[in-house]
Amino acid sequence: MQCLEITDLRNRLIRQEETIIFALIERAQFELNPTIYEPGRIPMPDFDGCFSDFLLFRTECLHAMVRRYTSPDEHPFFENLPVPILPHIDYPEVIRETSINVNDRILSLYKSHILPAICRLGDDGQYGSSATCDVACLQALSMRIHYGKFVAETKYRQDLGAYGRIIRDGDRDAILECLTDADVEAGIYRRVERKAATYGRDIDVDGDVGVYKISPAEIAKIYRKWIIPLTKEVEVDYLLLRLDG
Amino acid sequence: MQCLEITDLRNRLIRQEETIIFALIERAQFELNPTIYEPGRIPMPDFDGCFSDFLLFRTECLHAMVRRYTSPDEHPFFENLPVPILPHIDYPEVIRETSINVNDRILSLYKSHILPAICRLGDDGQYGSSATCDVACLQALSMRIHYGKFVAETKYRQDLGAYGRIIRDGDRDAILECLTDADVEAGIYRRVERKAATYGRDIDVDGDVGVYKISPAEIAKIYRKWIIPLTKEVEVDYLLLRLDG
Repeated sequence: MQCLEITDLRNRLIRQEETIIFALIERAQFELNPTIYEPGRIPMPDFDGCFSDFLLFRTECLHAMVRRYTSPDEHPFFENLPVPILPHIDYPEVIRETSINVNDRILSLYKSHILPAICRLGDDGQYGSSATCDVACLQALSMRIHYGKFVAETKYRQDLGAYGRIIRDGDRDAILECLTDADVEAGIYRRVERKAATYGRDIDVDGDVGVYKISPAEIAKIYRKWIIPLTKEVEVDYLLLRLDG
Repeated sequence: MQCLEITDLRNRLIRQEETIIFALIERAQFELNPTIYEPGRIPMPDFDGCFSDFLLFRTECLHAMVRRYTSPDEHPFFENLPVPILPHIDYPEVIRETSINVNDRILSLYKSHILPAICRLGDDGQYGSSATCDVACLQALSMRIHYGKFVAETKYRQDLGAYGRIIRDGDRDAILECLTDADVEAGIYRRVERKAATYGRDIDVDGDVGVYKISPAEIAKIYRKWIIPLTKEVEVDYLLLRLDG
């Protein structure tokens, strides 16, 4: 396997914060619009789920055609997607191939916790726009959280001995502890809050008007309560499979 | 026809600046990738154009299904899109219905002028990601520029007499002059540059690191050279049709 440079990995994770924050700010301009999350409320052809999921599924069908999900850092929310119409790329093997995919949980926490934290309650009728923003938010969250696989691989390589032992023991708690760096995490929450405060502020001709489109503290909380814990679960799941095969 | 509140219209135009700037910043993280703009270079089924256009076309097919282009503020880049699968909405008539659609020119100036102004030259292989960002940029630009119809309608109503006369004369130059407010435009360029400087800056744990993801001056220039002039053309075209029917 090829080695992923730790600086490169760190830069990608940091850059994904912008993508996530921009996507959440865009979604937050529309109201919650609960109608688009109620399965069957807006009947869609050959699809049982809700309107937002329909748009996500059909977008994934299109992106699958152009080979999105053959990339090791992309994970679809839906199964049975079309086969790519573009020729296969042999990506360099940087992580072990696994079937780990936590998108079901991402979809669920997005609807239950993230949307209510960023959107005004209510129905403004902007269903298509809201669902289009949902697709961008979910794709950005999914990429960030599944990057846990790359993070785990990099940490594993930095200390083969220690990880080898606790992985063989199947000791989830020990692996989680070994992966956790409270200082690094505190830095992420601080940086993310600063970014949300900068990118989410309203700007007038004469400068900052001191209004935030989304609460910077809420964005830091979304990272602390959902994104980072779920990323670490992906890391643990990945390491438990690391010595197989 | 219903009347569009001038404050509401102004707020929407200002909010669209964020959407455009966020989309351009997202596109700028990838290199230019000229391959995706060369027709036929990546062969796509039943499609003669380039890869980026293919993704735009197929995205429009999906969005047409969920009724995007029945909204008076949405304009597709492609023709012969599928019919909506959702029931028709009767939007309140705020502007006259016209066939004005300058998306061909938006697509052309995006590829010729905007992309080279924001992306590093080169090919990083991120074709799918780049084309996905292109869709977001083009949809945001198209909405902003075609909002010229709403702007024109509002200005027309503020001075029926003056506009009526020059419209009946078919005097494009006089209409353009009547629509132009150099102070307002200078304010837009100033605000857009400030926004690009704020939303495009890199933020570290300890604060601003003084690096811009895109040049704020380039964003102001894109507004000054392309977005505003083309918006004003839409305004003139709209007013020339305003008294018909």
